[in-house]
Amino acid sequence: MSMRVRRLLPLEISAMNEHAQVVLARPTGSRNVGAVCRAMKSMGMRNLIIIPPERSDYCEHVPPVRDTAAETLRNTVFDRSAVEMVAVHSADVYAECHFAASLEEAVSGSTAVVGFTRRSGRFRHTNRFTPRILAEHFASMRSGTVSLVFGNERSGLSTEELAVCSMCCEIPSAPDQGSLNLSHAVQIACYEFFQAGVDDSPTETVALERVDEIASYLYELLEDIGALELSVPEETRMYLRSVLSRSLLNDYEATKLHKMLRKLRHMKIREAGS
Amino acid sequence: MSMRVRRLLPLEISAMNEHAQVVLARPTGSRNVGAVCRAMKSMGMRNLIIIPPERSDYCEHVPPVRDTAAETLRNTVFDRSAVEMVAVHSADVYAECHFAASLEEAVSGSTAVVGFTRRSGRFRHTNRFTPRILAEHFASMRSGTVSLVFGNERSGLSTEELAVCSMCCEIPSAPDQGSLNLSHAVQIACYEFFQAGVDDSPTETVALERVDEIASYLYELLEDIGALELSVPEETRMYLRSVLSRSLLNDYEATKLHKMLRKLRHMKIREAGS
Repeated sequence: MSMRVRRLLPLEISAMNEHAQVVLARPTGSRNVGAVCRAMKSMGMRNLIIIPPERSDYCEHVPPVRDTAAETLRNTVFDRSAVEMVAVHSADVYAECHFAASLEEAVSGSTAVVGFTRRSGRFRHTNRFTPRILAEHFASMRSGTVSLVFGNERSGLSTEELAVCSMCCEIPSAPDQGSLNLSHAVQIACYEFFQAGVDDSPTETVALERVDEIASYLYELLEDIGALELSVPEETRMYLRSVLSRSLLNDYEATKLHKMLRKLRHMKIREAGS
Repeated sequence: MSMRVRRLLPLEISAMNEHAQVVLARPTGSRNVGAVCRAMKSMGMRNLIIIPPERSDYCEHVPPVRDTAAETLRNTVFDRSAVEMVAVHSADVYAECHFAASLEEAVSGSTAVVGFTRRSGRFRHTNRFTPRILAEHFASMRSGTVSLVFGNERSGLSTEELAVCSMCCEIPSAPDQGSLNLSHAVQIACYEFFQAGVDDSPTETVALERVDEIASYLYELLEDIGALELSVPEETRMYLRSVLSRSLLNDYEATKLHKMLRKLRHMKIREAGS
């Protein structure tokens, strides 16, 4: 008898993540960019747009974006070997990413532009959504692009950048240390959009009738072996049913349990007969 | 007039994450351990247990766990400065973590032990849950501890380690590259447990009555200025109501819109009068 494992993986990439793109505004860490690539690809997302940091922000070798070939930017803005080392099987996301001179350029043509931020303040949006609510909101989208915009590692999205966004998202986090690593924030956002397309109902949980059947069988077995002498039958039946139903048995597990109980009962009968 | 930002943060750390602990089985990367600390703390989780890698797995300077003071282990198993650099304000999680000689020791006393894995196979659990389903399942727990167990970066949880776990969790991911970085997997797990305690209903979305009021006002305004001459009134009313209701206005946004329309109408009236 082989064990049947029902995997929770969706058969196809969640359609949602084909409609989303990640925009990194002024990221400075090559390892972070690599980690973002891996986070994205693990959730079936491939579209990455990077707005390179200003030269003064970071380093002097960032060439101006306009009039510079993407290949040149790819090899000069970040340490490509560091990106690829952290990207692990996801370096293709970096190899295919686009560079934009401004956030406006990066998100042009989007249906919605979602800025991720924890900081509040004037002009920093009065209505904030969680990644889950956003993912559910956009789950029915069948065309267009949602841009998910993340700011610089240290300073996050500036108020000017956030003003370009049409919506604002805040990842729920702990009050005493709510700061997430850039790639971790991207991972959660992509995960939520991916998850919106996943059927995550518990794996083939059996109907209560099956549980009842097993509970009755177990009850009778316990009665047979004299384990219930002092108990109140209704209470014991209810107890067995409740505990068993809580364990969310799948078909394989229910069948196995039933078989084991049947074997036990037969042993008991044989023993009684001997 | 000040802008009122309704933040989505819970007032207290989600109770769930006080009942959970992260167990790292044989992690080898100091940076990964630091990133795990940050991921945990950002989601209000502080309890970390590490089973150090076997000496042969990794490096020769790992001392035997038993009979070794935690402080010695903390300073010799990983490169502490690398842990702290990546942990960013979360180094206290590492400073307070426990070391265990085996997975059995690490999870002893737990109510449930959840192993995170993508690999399936004989003896690797027949029933798999997503992090979300698990978090919802345990959300009502008011005592006891749920151990969230993550394996080594390269090989994940071994079949023997998974056998110690009472449940199995698989993070939904892309079929072509489903491998998550260790700290990213921990981030998603902690996020789901944290999220289970968060009220993520959209921020103060106004009732449809408010939307109706604004839609009617807008309709009348459009009628006033002669913008509706060729339209079918019912259709236009329905259109305005539908579009406005879809934007999930909060109180501040609804009030602002209403005020602007009122101003526009008054301007129109003045203009007509002049």
